[in-house]
Amino acid sequence: MNPPNPPKTDARRHHDPEVRGFASDNYAGAHPEILAALALANGGHQIAYGEDDYTAHLQQVIRGHFGASAEAFPVFNGTGANVTALQALTDRWGAVICADTAHIHVDECGAPERVGGLKLLTVPTPDGKLTPELIDREAYGWDDEHRAMPQVVSITQNTELGTVYTPEEVRAICEHAHAHGMKVHLDGSRIANAAASLDVPMRTFTNRAGVDVLSLGGTKNGALFGEAVVVLNPDAVSHMKHLRKLSMQLASKMRFVSVQLEALLAKDLWLRNARHANEMAQRLAEGVRAVDGVEILHPVQANAVFARLPNAVSERLQQRYRFYFWDEAAGDVRWMCSFDTTADDVDSFVAALKEEMAAR
Amino acid sequence: MNPPNPPKTDARRHHDPEVRGFASDNYAGAHPEILAALALANGGHQIAYGEDDYTAHLQQVIRGHFGASAEAFPVFNGTGANVTALQALTDRWGAVICADTAHIHVDECGAPERVGGLKLLTVPTPDGKLTPELIDREAYGWDDEHRAMPQVVSITQNTELGTVYTPEEVRAICEHAHAHGMKVHLDGSRIANAAASLDVPMRTFTNRAGVDVLSLGGTKNGALFGEAVVVLNPDAVSHMKHLRKLSMQLASKMRFVSVQLEALLAKDLWLRNARHANEMAQRLAEGVRAVDGVEILHPVQANAVFARLPNAVSERLQQRYRFYFWDEAAGDVRWMCSFDTTADDVDSFVAALKEEMAAR
Amino acid sequence: MNPPNPPKTDARRHHDPEVRGFASDNYAGAHPEILAALALANGGHQIAYGEDDYTAHLQQVIRGHFGASAEAFPVFNGTGANVTALQALTDRWGAVICADTAHIHVDECGAPERVGGLKLLTVPTPDGKLTPELIDREAYGWDDEHRAMPQVVSITQNTELGTVYTPEEVRAICEHAHAHGMKVHLDGSRIANAAASLDVPMRTFTNRAGVDVLSLGGTKNGALFGEAVVVLNPDAVSHMKHLRKLSMQLASKMRFVSVQLEALLAKDLWLRNARHANEMAQRLAEGVRAVDGVEILHPVQANAVFARLPNAVSERLQQRYRFYFWDEAAGDVRWMCSFDTTADDVDSFVAALKEEMAAR
Amino acid sequence: MNPPNPPKTDARRHHDPEVRGFASDNYAGAHPEILAALALANGGHQIAYGEDDYTAHLQQVIRGHFGASAEAFPVFNGTGANVTALQALTDRWGAVICADTAHIHVDECGAPERVGGLKLLTVPTPDGKLTPELIDREAYGWDDEHRAMPQVVSITQNTELGTVYTPEEVRAICEHAHAHGMKVHLDGSRIANAAASLDVPMRTFTNRAGVDVLSLGGTKNGALFGEAVVVLNPDAVSHMKHLRKLSMQLASKMRFVSVQLEALLAKDLWLRNARHANEMAQRLAEGVRAVDGVEILHPVQANAVFARLPNAVSERLQQRYRFYFWDEAAGDVRWMCSFDTTADDVDSFVAALKEEMAAR
Repeated sequence: MNPPNPPKTDARRHHDPEVRGFASDNYAGAHPEILAALALANGGHQIAYGEDDYTAHLQQVIRGHFGASAEAFPVFNGTGANVTALQALTDRWGAVICADTAHIHVDECGAPERVGGLKLLTVPTPDGKLTPELIDREAYGWDDEHRAMPQVVSITQNTELGTVYTPEEVRAICEHAHAHGMKVHLDGSRIANAAASLDVPMRTFTNRAGVDVLSLGGTKNGALFGEAVVVLNPDAVSHMKHLRKLSMQLASKMRFVSVQLEALLAKDLWLRNARHANEMAQRLAEGVRAVDGVEILHPVQANAVFARLPNAVSERLQQRYRFYFWDEAAGDVRWMCSFDTTADDVDSFVAALKEEMAAR
Repeated sequence: MNPPNPPKTDARRHHDPEVRGFASDNYAGAHPEILAALALANGGHQIAYGEDDYTAHLQQVIRGHFGASAEAFPVFNGTGANVTALQALTDRWGAVICADTAHIHVDECGAPERVGGLKLLTVPTPDGKLTPELIDREAYGWDDEHRAMPQVVSITQNTELGTVYTPEEVRAICEHAHAHGMKVHLDGSRIANAAASLDVPMRTFTNRAGVDVLSLGGTKNGALFGEAVVVLNPDAVSHMKHLRKLSMQLASKMRFVSVQLEALLAKDLWLRNARHANEMAQRLAEGVRAVDGVEILHPVQANAVFARLPNAVSERLQQRYRFYFWDEAAGDVRWMCSFDTTADDVDSFVAALKEEMAAR
Repeated sequence: MNPPNPPKTDARRHHDPEVRGFASDNYAGAHPEILAALALANGGHQIAYGEDDYTAHLQQVIRGHFGASAEAFPVFNGTGANVTALQALTDRWGAVICADTAHIHVDECGAPERVGGLKLLTVPTPDGKLTPELIDREAYGWDDEHRAMPQVVSITQNTELGTVYTPEEVRAICEHAHAHGMKVHLDGSRIANAAASLDVPMRTFTNRAGVDVLSLGGTKNGALFGEAVVVLNPDAVSHMKHLRKLSMQLASKMRFVSVQLEALLAKDLWLRNARHANEMAQRLAEGVRAVDGVEILHPVQANAVFARLPNAVSERLQQRYRFYFWDEAAGDVRWMCSFDTTADDVDSFVAALKEEMAAR
Repeated sequence: MNPPNPPKTDARRHHDPEVRGFASDNYAGAHPEILAALALANGGHQIAYGEDDYTAHLQQVIRGHFGASAEAFPVFNGTGANVTALQALTDRWGAVICADTAHIHVDECGAPERVGGLKLLTVPTPDGKLTPELIDREAYGWDDEHRAMPQVVSITQNTELGTVYTPEEVRAICEHAHAHGMKVHLDGSRIANAAASLDVPMRTFTNRAGVDVLSLGGTKNGALFGEAVVVLNPDAVSHMKHLRKLSMQLASKMRFVSVQLEALLAKDLWLRNARHANEMAQRLAEGVRAVDGVEILHPVQANAVFARLPNAVSERLQQRYRFYFWDEAAGDVRWMCSFDTTADDVDSFVAALKEEMAAR
């Protein structure tokens, strides 16, 4: 009953673990402590679909971080977290105000619109960050049935451009949104990097700043996979379990999602990983700044460095290290550091950049 | 930046690995070989979103099982696999004919309708199995714009009632569907159990029988999580990657899904696990048949035993072992065996059943 | 700028106004009083999108029929009314219990699922009518996130099979639904025929019986087009205007919808038209009963007659009068009477039926 | 069975036909020839849902305007036409590039997203008109599954800002779109005004310029209601009837939609109405230009005049004539002329504007 010619390849040789790059923080694998946690959670039976002991324990950990009224709903991935959260915060007629660089707008293949029937109202920003003034470009017309009703402001922390909102900036957005009857969603697929950058607890710029619902990222922080919708304001939503299920984000063996998030969050793995990635980005930025002809584009506040350099140089460099163009027409590239980026990785990359720039 | 009062609980004490039951095959954890595969795939960088070496290698394994034109699209869970597959097989005006016991109809919180805009046309069956005659109850009206157009027949193998289609039965359905211009989807969340039961390769009742697209299950077969949409007839679909992404089923670190499926399918783990679960169900059925007053309801062909017994007995028994009522009004219960169910588990359960029946 | 060869045909010769049949009550045109009302409403400017004087006046008329808390939201057609109403009554995770003969299930090309993301839970019935017992087949599992949550019971009055719920029957359904936290929608595309049949005001079997939201039909009652979602229980819904707009059912020159409904409802046109159609159906049934070999299938309580006769006879008869097979395999046909069906139409048809039966 | 206290009001007194304004071209009623056409089409039975003689005849008229391969699918309203058309032109993963002033983006309460699951990719424009260069801001990434795939360019003719594309401009857009594998949709809710403005047949800037599918407007051109999706390129779409039905835009008594469109298009009513409205806008613009302190904002090419003036003046003027602010912050207003706007209406309005400006 096995295939007649089973492949003989040893999975061990599938990839070369020495290869590294700066393409994305999800090119990295998982942190060893994550694998250890999975092994710990294995064995015996557990109630499926979230009534297991690990998910229960995760709630304690989440309350430790976000306060007694917080509740986590583990899901598979970031798009799933975002779309589940935004559906929870909107009526059928609702719209979501976001930056035009937001992941929900540019990187989710229309899932918010197609799965949730959500209308996105996008605003251009200089640095990926909304402000009350920018929000006001789309925050109007609540009584006008011709217009999708703005019900949520969605911000990303840290942003897709590697910038970080201060707690005060988040608070100003939340106060503004709430004053207009809107709720606030924070896409925190890299929330750990933001907290590390700001050197404050996550609560400082989430529930304490007025955020209603959070997409909490685990994957880019060192998990195999796994995120959570964290409800910070229980009055803002209801029936999260139904919403998660209909959004196809309900894991049957949920213990294996929850234990990863617990492994990250219960002690300081989340922070160690994020700090390290941020430090590598600083090291990279420092190195790059010393290279003539390469311009760093945004403040380097988390684990991303955006730069502008000649396309021909980027293309040659891409043959040595994987990374992406951000805006090929402008010559903009994105370099991401992850929890497992090493100082050697960075230094070698900067050296290569120098070589390729010199070889122009 | 950590929470002020981090929980002190040791995750090791989260659950008692000795506890077992018959509630669901996803109450089990993961097979140790799965954890080993995850460790193997860890280390170094891999292109995200499916261009990694493990996903490439999985394609070879899949082709070994299903033939040279098969292609796997790993996803997170069964609902995600089903809804992605069904969207691929339907136009905006399409409908899906399925048994009224189908998981897509009764267990997915309306995700097919809500995410995919799919209309389900359900047919009652005696045993969870469709036939050409049963399909014909809904297979008509292709030119009638008032009616959602039947474009797909979706069958489950093995069925939600623990019954198994023979290859000939699947072939008859496929020929009938194709003759009417419809495609065939097979929900194979327990396909391994069906193959083990029939003692034939999976291809015998899938691509060789005419199935166009398959939802291939990994979770219930011993993975932590992970399924795949397997396209068997490439002419039937297009743009699967876009459909998977917009269905929020695209894993960034896809290697960790693919390597689990590979670990199941490359050698014989899938079959060992399924055979064992099926054998435990047979042992359980045998034991139950010896208990007066308990009726077995459907042929026990896979890893499920459905039985009818006094509700009061079931309720007392549920205090000793977890399992679910299937139809409480009728006194019907479902007992599932998993890859890690032991002969001791079964024998103890049968003994308990006897005790509780005797105690009436 | 006109087309080079404008068609010369005189529209007057487009159709033969003498041709009549029994295919559908929307094969008829409009009642002359409807055309007169349109002319009356024409001239001068009126605020678009429902803030016109005719729509305001329609509200008074509606309150006269359904009580002080009723509010009408005019829409274009029945499917639009139903899907707007059902969206208003459900959350994103909601499901609708209906008969498996319901128009929303069999005649709307999946619009409830596709537009509203609604899950329909269908129940077979002997005569198109739900009962508390039949509802209970699907009314369970409110806490189970795997199941679309039953939030609405939708009934059709009169039913698609020409049967009529008594006010007591509707009340029993509403009490049962409300006791389970569900709301009740009534698809009243032929509500006038039901009221005429029961010889009671519409309120008797709608708001007074507990119905929450009504789809009120105008088209089959003699309008050119035009229906209304009538909210009977304002606590059950909100933001109807947004829902109507996003459901693409907002007429810009709404006065022309409203004035038709007003023309029907302000005096007794609605009732005259319905009574006449019902009387013609009784006359038809009486005539048919006298024909040997033709069986009438359901109680003739409104303007439809369902009959069983040899298919060969039906096919010959269809060459003389248009009507539809209802279930061709069973030999079942449907004959509909409309507000403009004449006694002569009926008598000639019965004579033709006799001839064709005799010619077997 | 009538309401106990039927309202006594005579509908004749519902509104004052002398009241006129400049708020919208759908504040006007219907042209008398439209009412006459409705009367003509009444009487006798016609097959419902589009198989009637009037709809058949409309096809001839449409082919006269748009060529032998054109086919019209009458619908209720503009949003319905647009969303039906765009669904026909896109796959489940498709996106639509449009101006950020497009009606589909700002005036349809998210119906494209909610009903069709469509992703809109919006581009700012100076005058409501896209160009190949502006389209290129969003026309990329067809192979990137993270991005909704640009499959359609949707333009509005005339635009929402009262500007008109030349046939050459439309052709350039179509060639550009087609070269990238995209289709072109034209929202022609005011297509008659555009044709009148350009003084060319509609075909010149639609099918002859490469437009694939057209939303043809009737309501603003003098009908009571009624638009049509006109398929110009039959290879671009399929199953339009199913799409229209599932979009809840299928009229049962379709003859009454079709005969209105026929009345507009068979001879020159469409053009007379549009020319008149355009002339009134020119007269208005001329009058406004003579008023110091009022700035006209866009080229007045159709039946709209956009102007900037002190808000206080606008507000006083609004107490005498209805019209809307377009951008209250900027002091921008929109004045629309309709088929029934008279020279007196315009002259009186200009006089009032002068008075209010003088009264500052």
